[in-house]
Amino acid sequence: MSRMEIFGIEGIGEIHAGDDLAALIHEASSSSTDTMLIDGDVLVVTQKIVSKAEDRLVAIDPTDPLSHKPLVERESVRILRRRGDLIISETEHGFICANAGIDLSNVESGWAALLPVDSDRSARRIRDGLRHRFNVDVAVIISDTFGRPWRRGVTDVAIGCAGVAGIVDLRGTPDALGREMHVTEVAIVDELAAAAELVMGKSTNIPVAVIRGADPTWLRDGSVADEIVRSPSDDLFR
Amino acid sequence: MSRMEIFGIEGIGEIHAGDDLAALIHEASSSSTDTMLIDGDVLVVTQKIVSKAEDRLVAIDPTDPLSHKPLVERESVRILRRRGDLIISETEHGFICANAGIDLSNVESGWAALLPVDSDRSARRIRDGLRHRFNVDVAVIISDTFGRPWRRGVTDVAIGCAGVAGIVDLRGTPDALGREMHVTEVAIVDELAAAAELVMGKSTNIPVAVIRGADPTWLRDGSVADEIVRSPSDDLFR
Repeated sequence: MSRMEIFGIEGIGEIHAGDDLAALIHEASSSSTDTMLIDGDVLVVTQKIVSKAEDRLVAIDPTDPLSHKPLVERESVRILRRRGDLIISETEHGFICANAGIDLSNVESGWAALLPVDSDRSARRIRDGLRHRFNVDVAVIISDTFGRPWRRGVTDVAIGCAGVAGIVDLRGTPDALGREMHVTEVAIVDELAAAAELVMGKSTNIPVAVIRGADPTWLRDGSVADEIVRSPSDDLFR
Repeated sequence: MSRMEIFGIEGIGEIHAGDDLAALIHEASSSSTDTMLIDGDVLVVTQKIVSKAEDRLVAIDPTDPLSHKPLVERESVRILRRRGDLIISETEHGFICANAGIDLSNVESGWAALLPVDSDRSARRIRDGLRHRFNVDVAVIISDTFGRPWRRGVTDVAIGCAGVAGIVDLRGTPDALGREMHVTEVAIVDELAAAAELVMGKSTNIPVAVIRGADPTWLRDGSVADEIVRSPSDDLFR
């Protein structure tokens, strides 16, 4: 029977520029036998600590609530919508989100956190660090919290991945009644990011979660940039 | 430490109009001590079996691959986009999805499955059945598979819920650095639906999954129609 387990990794602490995330995650997860990483685990790491480790913090005026807005314009390649202070734009990565993914929560006052330059690469770096230096073969997803049109509320999605497929293509797989299916390209990397968020919460100190029991066929080279980001020409809503 | 478990319920079998889903789910889950339901579980039930039990099947011409298209028009209150055979439209529930949520996979040839009339009510009916007749207090989510703009691939989302919040409002909750957060209304009901899909798959016979270990504060009266569906006036993309 298919069964998965999701748990958070506690005790990672504040992250600073240059920190070695693979080492810190390995150390925190190894502090308890309950959370020790094993081959085949999928690690979901929030963008915030990746941006901090990669020194993607930019100084802003803490007395001006709109001081990050010029940054939003700079980090956007296309503005889709404006309403009041809210800007929905496309980043150079091809993500469409509020404020170009720039975040002020869980960042010290006077600083704004930009998205990582290349989150697939960030995921690969953590995965390679764990594999080569700590001898554990896990997949890594970098997650962020995005809104979406038509539905209220935010959900976590993947902005980068390594060692796990972005999309699992079930096109042509017979359905339970044996008929050929039409299109079912499941964005499992986004479903994994959403699942992880359920144990991380927003105001707790759990920036990393582990999903254990993922289908082994999902664990191949993957990329959010190549598989998930929809090209404008293929997009009906841009 | 926060820890969740997700597993599928097997052995539910083909569903027919009038079937008692609460009884069938209870019977299948009780067939093994590993899957027995307990208070506080969140049950995720795919739309397909709900539509079948509620007799939402409509006959179509099995020799004509476009014979469901008039149904799509009928079930839509607004067409947003057309490309080739694909119609993205708004249903009377306020969902925006491909082909008005009408599905031909996992349905016998010559039939199309419409969405339930009121999936919050469908969820409530299953929850009440399990509570009153089988004495187990679980939350219920009805899930369906939707595409989304800007990102490739489909993910499962909630189209109805009972006994679980649609949105958990973290506005004003201090973040990990003790500062007030701006807006973090998390659509946990969609994250739960996405998580459940990971153990259900598309071509296997697992129409129901259980999420165990949900935060007890999430388990209150909830509604997808009231909490998740964004009103057109509040929507920047309609």
